[in-house]
Amino acid sequence: MTTNTTKIRTFETEPLVIAGVTFSSRLFLGTGKYSSSAAMRESIAASGSQLVTVALRRVRTDGGVDDILDHIDRERCRLLPNTSGVRDAKEAVLAAELAREAMETNWVKLEIHPDPKYLMPDPVETLLATRELVKRGFVVLPYVHADPVLCKQLEEAGAAAVMPLGAPIGSNRGLETRAFLEIILAQARVPVVIDAGLGAPSHAAAALEMGADAVLVNTAIAAASDPVGMGAAFRKAVEAGRLGYEAGLAARGAELRAVATSPLTAFLSEV
Amino acid sequence: MTTNTTKIRTFETEPLVIAGVTFSSRLFLGTGKYSSSAAMRESIAASGSQLVTVALRRVRTDGGVDDILDHIDRERCRLLPNTSGVRDAKEAVLAAELAREAMETNWVKLEIHPDPKYLMPDPVETLLATRELVKRGFVVLPYVHADPVLCKQLEEAGAAAVMPLGAPIGSNRGLETRAFLEIILAQARVPVVIDAGLGAPSHAAAALEMGADAVLVNTAIAAASDPVGMGAAFRKAVEAGRLGYEAGLAARGAELRAVATSPLTAFLSEV
Amino acid sequence: MTTNTTKIRTFETEPLVIAGVTFSSRLFLGTGKYSSSAAMRESIAASGSQLVTVALRRVRTDGGVDDILDHIDRERCRLLPNTSGVRDAKEAVLAAELAREAMETNWVKLEIHPDPKYLMPDPVETLLATRELVKRGFVVLPYVHADPVLCKQLEEAGAAAVMPLGAPIGSNRGLETRAFLEIILAQARVPVVIDAGLGAPSHAAAALEMGADAVLVNTAIAAASDPVGMGAAFRKAVEAGRLGYEAGLAARGAELRAVATSPLTAFLSEV
Amino acid sequence: MTTNTTKIRTFETEPLVIAGVTFSSRLFLGTGKYSSSAAMRESIAASGSQLVTVALRRVRTDGGVDDILDHIDRERCRLLPNTSGVRDAKEAVLAAELAREAMETNWVKLEIHPDPKYLMPDPVETLLATRELVKRGFVVLPYVHADPVLCKQLEEAGAAAVMPLGAPIGSNRGLETRAFLEIILAQARVPVVIDAGLGAPSHAAAALEMGADAVLVNTAIAAASDPVGMGAAFRKAVEAGRLGYEAGLAARGAELRAVATSPLTAFLSEV
Repeated sequence: MTTNTTKIRTFETEPLVIAGVTFSSRLFLGTGKYSSSAAMRESIAASGSQLVTVALRRVRTDGGVDDILDHIDRERCRLLPNTSGVRDAKEAVLAAELAREAMETNWVKLEIHPDPKYLMPDPVETLLATRELVKRGFVVLPYVHADPVLCKQLEEAGAAAVMPLGAPIGSNRGLETRAFLEIILAQARVPVVIDAGLGAPSHAAAALEMGADAVLVNTAIAAASDPVGMGAAFRKAVEAGRLGYEAGLAARGAELRAVATSPLTAFLSEV
Repeated sequence: MTTNTTKIRTFETEPLVIAGVTFSSRLFLGTGKYSSSAAMRESIAASGSQLVTVALRRVRTDGGVDDILDHIDRERCRLLPNTSGVRDAKEAVLAAELAREAMETNWVKLEIHPDPKYLMPDPVETLLATRELVKRGFVVLPYVHADPVLCKQLEEAGAAAVMPLGAPIGSNRGLETRAFLEIILAQARVPVVIDAGLGAPSHAAAALEMGADAVLVNTAIAAASDPVGMGAAFRKAVEAGRLGYEAGLAARGAELRAVATSPLTAFLSEV
Repeated sequence: MTTNTTKIRTFETEPLVIAGVTFSSRLFLGTGKYSSSAAMRESIAASGSQLVTVALRRVRTDGGVDDILDHIDRERCRLLPNTSGVRDAKEAVLAAELAREAMETNWVKLEIHPDPKYLMPDPVETLLATRELVKRGFVVLPYVHADPVLCKQLEEAGAAAVMPLGAPIGSNRGLETRAFLEIILAQARVPVVIDAGLGAPSHAAAALEMGADAVLVNTAIAAASDPVGMGAAFRKAVEAGRLGYEAGLAARGAELRAVATSPLTAFLSEV
Repeated sequence: MTTNTTKIRTFETEPLVIAGVTFSSRLFLGTGKYSSSAAMRESIAASGSQLVTVALRRVRTDGGVDDILDHIDRERCRLLPNTSGVRDAKEAVLAAELAREAMETNWVKLEIHPDPKYLMPDPVETLLATRELVKRGFVVLPYVHADPVLCKQLEEAGAAAVMPLGAPIGSNRGLETRAFLEIILAQARVPVVIDAGLGAPSHAAAALEMGADAVLVNTAIAAASDPVGMGAAFRKAVEAGRLGYEAGLAARGAELRAVATSPLTAFLSEV
């Protein structure tokens, strides 16, 4: 019976696998800009995220861990140290090594931005650092421009995933790189995580709808009036986008001229 | 303890009230274009919708009900007959009266489109018909262009809600009328339901994020490869959009220049 | 010889005809918001416009003409009085009659906006007023929402052209109503003039490229740092857009995958 | 007298200087995809372009020149050989050297795209090749992704200009990289030429309006129904965009709420 069928469906989507680790949530979170650690902790919980990125800068350098790590439930969330603040490959490798020791994980989000103003990633140094870090046994997720050639090269260099940006970081402008993300997604054989610029749940949904494997969000949640509610909103949006992708979106614009319906007129005049 | 706080939050959003009736779902559905009645039934169930619109045309005229109504669970879903196919106010009023009798509801989605090609609504006849139908005791939800002046006049004429279009019907192009919807939302004292053109879960989320009270979706769900999965996707997207709206989106574009972070350099050189 | 052919071409475009009057310029201008009458006069000259609209409000009511009219070269420019400030059809007809007397022209740009905040046009009253003014012998150019049904009805009511808006007036946001303008242009048998919201020369060019017959610009020119230079810029943009339209634009997005070129590699290895 | 002032203004815009060479035209042209050499020659003439790019591939390798060069008026147009078809820096340098010999110019448009499908540029090899070519005395104009960090590095490596792309090549989609071009333009100390994806005169105008120094167009002109007319259209559009830029565009969206005008009502009731 069809009614039973309806009940059976749980609308679970395909899980995401990065470097052999399975994630049921496709929403990754940043940990900057929260007003308090409590807000951060509850927001992460509400978001259902299983991967959060933490700047090495925010971890104590005496080998112990900073307060921030106490607020992340490592049972549910994997830590993804990031190298934010480094300016070249050499610094990035050093930062990754320190992070590996301090946070006890060989995963690293590679961010190299020589310019402190716009925090745009450096393509050349990122490729160099990826090669070196892979050699050193890291699971590398590089944050880069939505550059199809570079993303392919990073994949070939052994990156576990690529993280092209959707819009300038912190801009909340959404998928401004859509035309290039389409090419990146068509070519990629590793997961593609859209990072930066996603400013609303609908932006995250749109990223998943177009086939992105996951999104990383920070400002839009941390800077919301209610970061916990916003975490929950993004959770649903990401699930919606992935479900929509798997359910097969109808073509856009295909049908500008609406299907002509039979006018009701004949019908009415028969009454 | 904050952990408890987290558990207490259910992320339920404010319910929607139209003409005294409360809806916990802000997703309304159309019933056209489904490949089968079973697909429609399951899709509606998956969507969580509590209001579905049915063309009078599809109801049998012998006073009995058509097969389509057998597939709508009227315990969970309110019927919203629509006047699709009529060309002017006079036909609309006649169709509404027939629908009231056949479907046993005084709610009506008023659609008047003289042109069978693009199915664009007629502003003048819609205003006339609204006035007449309100006088006759109908709960009127007119489908109109995203015209701020007309929406205000329909409200003053007694419409229970207004249903401005987001994009040409069936186009799946999303919120192309955004600039005008912003004005409509700023002015409205009745619920605003965005109808037509929403082609992806992310479009629905975006409508709710900007403050729309609900959306009506048909083609995007009915014509998806998996209409049931897509119904579930839209459900989550609408919940995400509303949650995002209530949680207070951060400003868009406000921060094109990323917040300058302290470089990691000094830190690294101290190591 | 082809070289001669090149010299012969003047790249003049098809002239625009409204109500039997031929315009070689497809750029119409508003006269509000200029910092001085001199700026306005020079800006109009630089723009090459042959039709400028003037609010009745700005003309003296003693039957004589206001200062503003002294600054418009009526040899080169036709006056188009507008009814800006009226709230309904009745006031519009009265204003049009006054304008006909004061400005000695039976042309009128019909603007009815009951709401002083957004200056959005009233569809119902505009249709009523158009019918009445046509009956009274006016050449009527109604300013309306980009509503395909309404535009068709205005044409049937005898409007000499229709003036759908591109974006909220004064917003400089460009062709936000594009999806609807496409339908209006596909259906229209009178000239279509895009009015309001065009904030840059590129917006005007885009309007002409999609087949609009003309554009009306005010804020973007009058409020520019250099209104005279901006008048010249819009002149060229409008000519460019029309030329582009006549020369047949290549399809957009048709070729996302670039034409594969033969690699130079083989060639290089032969060297 | 102000009338005289009007006549004096010629609306000439600031010339563009690249590597000491002055261009009065800011429109650069490609030479591919034309249906005939005659169409190309006339189209270039109509466009007013003073710089056209030619693939080395299309020049005969016996040291003599190919037919294509006979159709370019080198009195009016500077040749810009491009390295289209090479896959890495080494091939690019070889191609540039051959081009310098064959076309007798040390200018080169550096294009390195390892992928023949999308023709996307390679950031790492482009930077390497730029360094080498500058060392060898070339005037280098690299074609790259709209990557702010890379553009800055190319400038530091001695590039005479940078040529970030607007959209995927041949896509005619316009300024899809706008958010990143804004950053590139804000940072650049060498001319910025937007290349690729500009599909309509309005796109070219928009590029100039935002401060781009020039644009390079090929497909949109060569594949137009009337390439000569389209060349003229782009010429005007580029002039319009530059004029608009110099005249100071009014802010966009600044004024969503239209300036409230005094209603005409009081005035009318006094009549």
